[in-house]
Amino acid sequence: MKIVAAKKLLKANDQLAEENRENFTRAGIFGVNIVGSPGCGKTTLLEALFGRLKGRVKPAVIEGDIAGSIDAERIDALGVPVVQINTDGACHLDANMIAAAARDFDWEAIDLLVVENVGNLVCTAGFDLGEHLRIVVLSVPEGDDKLAKYPAIFQGSDALVITKTDLLPYIKFDVDRVTGDMARLAPAAEIFQVAALQGEGIDSLAQWLAGKCPAAGL
Amino acid sequence: MKIVAAKKLLKANDQLAEENRENFTRAGIFGVNIVGSPGCGKTTLLEALFGRLKGRVKPAVIEGDIAGSIDAERIDALGVPVVQINTDGACHLDANMIAAAARDFDWEAIDLLVVENVGNLVCTAGFDLGEHLRIVVLSVPEGDDKLAKYPAIFQGSDALVITKTDLLPYIKFDVDRVTGDMARLAPAAEIFQVAALQGEGIDSLAQWLAGKCPAAGL
Repeated sequence: MKIVAAKKLLKANDQLAEENRENFTRAGIFGVNIVGSPGCGKTTLLEALFGRLKGRVKPAVIEGDIAGSIDAERIDALGVPVVQINTDGACHLDANMIAAAARDFDWEAIDLLVVENVGNLVCTAGFDLGEHLRIVVLSVPEGDDKLAKYPAIFQGSDALVITKTDLLPYIKFDVDRVTGDMARLAPAAEIFQVAALQGEGIDSLAQWLAGKCPAAGL
Repeated sequence: MKIVAAKKLLKANDQLAEENRENFTRAGIFGVNIVGSPGCGKTTLLEALFGRLKGRVKPAVIEGDIAGSIDAERIDALGVPVVQINTDGACHLDANMIAAAARDFDWEAIDLLVVENVGNLVCTAGFDLGEHLRIVVLSVPEGDDKLAKYPAIFQGSDALVITKTDLLPYIKFDVDRVTGDMARLAPAAEIFQVAALQGEGIDSLAQWLAGKCPAAGL
């Protein structure tokens, strides 16, 4: 039996994440880790983004889910290379899973690697995957109090994308409260508002993301 | 330094949960564990339920959150006894936390103890708190694919409450897919559909819950 302390595991994860990041950087691949609650619209956001980025950026996706391949099938339908990780109960991805999954891609053929993490506003906060930036997604129906209740995941993110803004007319949601809370928790973070199914707000997010990819045709 | 294997911790949790359950039963208190994603509407559901159950059931609430006391303040405003647990980063409540928090209540004065777990569709699945039944909440905006993607939490629940049904006209959500998936994962589970802010569907859920409380005035 091998017993490993949680702190040591986290340290090992951080070292492996650093290796991932160096490998991606050397290969000219920009890595993004997308986190958010179950059903906040991460996959729908990717579908809209890849539509806008077509011909400018060559993306690939690693999908993290407890079970099944629903999200990977949606990405595959776009013609974007995708690997599905089934965590079999585990509540977040880690750097080791990413290192293994990324080997499946032709690194010459991609310049943006997006990891869609397991839907979880808590456990994904503590695990660096080796990404260059982390985007946290908050959907309007989740409510405007989520930054106060789950601060860690917002604090460590480089951008906040507020999704499902088409539902604002039907839901009590104070956008100013959310942007104010984000400004306090992560002053340097970018904030975007989108309605991905309607394509609203996708342009500026796509432009910002493409600007981060070293090899993107802007 | 003390190193404890995760499996042993889970076993210890199960034993403590069993003690909680026996203590609650002996005291004539019915225990409910409410789980679901961040922002699925757990607190709003409780507000609506306690309105309907007033004078029939004497409830108390344990609120689990990463940080803050937003939910506890909402429950307190209803005049319902409430204890807020701040997990300080931990992604679920455990039986030990419940045993400690429950000591704060006057057990003679309550007959329904509701635990509102941390918003998390993954990690809360593995931890018995000593409840008599577990209710999983799924909100319409989260999408109809959640049972396929997060099966464990639905499988182990005694009831599914579909919330925010007032948003059905604005969102692609197949109720039949959800009820079909639930029938497969948890054939014995009750299924309710509610729009808590509008009070729709609350009556039958309140009636069912009151019927479970040994001391409730029905």
